[in-house]
Amino acid sequence: MTVRRAPIPSLSPGERRLEGPIAHYLGRVLRLRSGDPFVAFDPATGLEADATTVRAEGATMSVRFGELRPGARARSAEATWIQGLAKGNKCDAIVRDATELGATRIVFAVSRRTVVKLDGASGEARRARWARIAREAARQCGRADAPIVDAPAPWSEALSRVDDAHARFCLWEGAVVPLAAQLFDALARGAPLAFACGPEGGLERSEVALAESRGWTVVSIGPLALRTETVAAAVLGAVRVWGAPFDRPSE
Amino acid sequence: MTVRRAPIPSLSPGERRLEGPIAHYLGRVLRLRSGDPFVAFDPATGLEADATTVRAEGATMSVRFGELRPGARARSAEATWIQGLAKGNKCDAIVRDATELGATRIVFAVSRRTVVKLDGASGEARRARWARIAREAARQCGRADAPIVDAPAPWSEALSRVDDAHARFCLWEGAVVPLAAQLFDALARGAPLAFACGPEGGLERSEVALAESRGWTVVSIGPLALRTETVAAAVLGAVRVWGAPFDRPSE
Repeated sequence: MTVRRAPIPSLSPGERRLEGPIAHYLGRVLRLRSGDPFVAFDPATGLEADATTVRAEGATMSVRFGELRPGARARSAEATWIQGLAKGNKCDAIVRDATELGATRIVFAVSRRTVVKLDGASGEARRARWARIAREAARQCGRADAPIVDAPAPWSEALSRVDDAHARFCLWEGAVVPLAAQLFDALARGAPLAFACGPEGGLERSEVALAESRGWTVVSIGPLALRTETVAAAVLGAVRVWGAPFDRPSE
Repeated sequence: MTVRRAPIPSLSPGERRLEGPIAHYLGRVLRLRSGDPFVAFDPATGLEADATTVRAEGATMSVRFGELRPGARARSAEATWIQGLAKGNKCDAIVRDATELGATRIVFAVSRRTVVKLDGASGEARRARWARIAREAARQCGRADAPIVDAPAPWSEALSRVDDAHARFCLWEGAVVPLAAQLFDALARGAPLAFACGPEGGLERSEVALAESRGWTVVSIGPLALRTETVAAAVLGAVRVWGAPFDRPSE
């Protein structure tokens, strides 16, 4: 049975009476009953604590919290995912996958082959929706922090949101350099990571050239054409699997 | 005991002092002590060399590398994915992802926490549907061959469909051994790969124990709980990204 986790603002040790949406979440969503254990985490600080429900009375719930400890963060290193804005609900799925697999920031980029039209207001509405999906995915996978989600930006601007302290990789099916070698080095150095990939139709040559001129390394992950919504899971999965031995144990 | 392998960037013959994450990896993950032999490989070139740890002192490690040689074998194309049968259209998505990411055989396994009920006829109907999805996905990503899709089988039988020539990994959130270290070795040896993962509710302890008793290595890909439909993309993505340096160039 997996451990139930709940976000508790201003988490501190001791007993506390919770009401409103939090009590509802504990009682109705997590279905905690008196005496049930769970893990509480503070979304603001990333700290967590063992917790036990003491009493559930109607719409309120009393909970005893133990000592605080650092939470299970996704990875020590930062990982930014820049995604060419895709159609339909593909972006929702990408936010969910990227969050589970440890992305710390997600930026949607409007590139030449982006089909979706967004103005300022609809862009902000989409951002708010993705941020909600990210928080929900973080909660479900037991991550104490949710990734930051930016409002959609033009390709050039999206690239410039990542500074050159990052190991930056532009994923392109026309590239010849394999991602593996360079990514391994970046993981070993513990460098913050950034990846950029195009929308359904891919990136245009001029967009790839722009990334390269800004210091991004243009890399391939093999000869087969992946759907854009698979790229994030595959690459962030690789980071997660191969980065694990380099994660400093939480001592 | 299998030979321990470690990725060493910029591998060259002679003695070298390693620090930071690589030394941590050699000492803590591979548990190498002074005088221990291992095989080093350069992820950028695929070249390898015999290596011996000369001294391990705190966070640094001195290693002597021998002459470089081409990596032992090309990577095998074979990768079997055993998936705990999941609800709704999750299995469709898993077939699509696994096909794009290079799986050569997909087996759905009925485990204790599988919710879906299938009899022989509905099992065969689902198999035919998944095989069609696999062919379609193979075509779309430019793959010449489509993976074989088996009809759903009980967990025990699904495990037995993979012989022990395979490097076999049972993915379990309760495991402590990270997949990475052992997968390196399997990729470098060119062993055919097999992975097994549970359905939505995960595997029961007895199912994990059964896999272990049959010679599967029970491994973790990190502390966060992935949805079952994300695991295939993440793990096969890792195989694809990190297997690339071992692929023999097509001469």
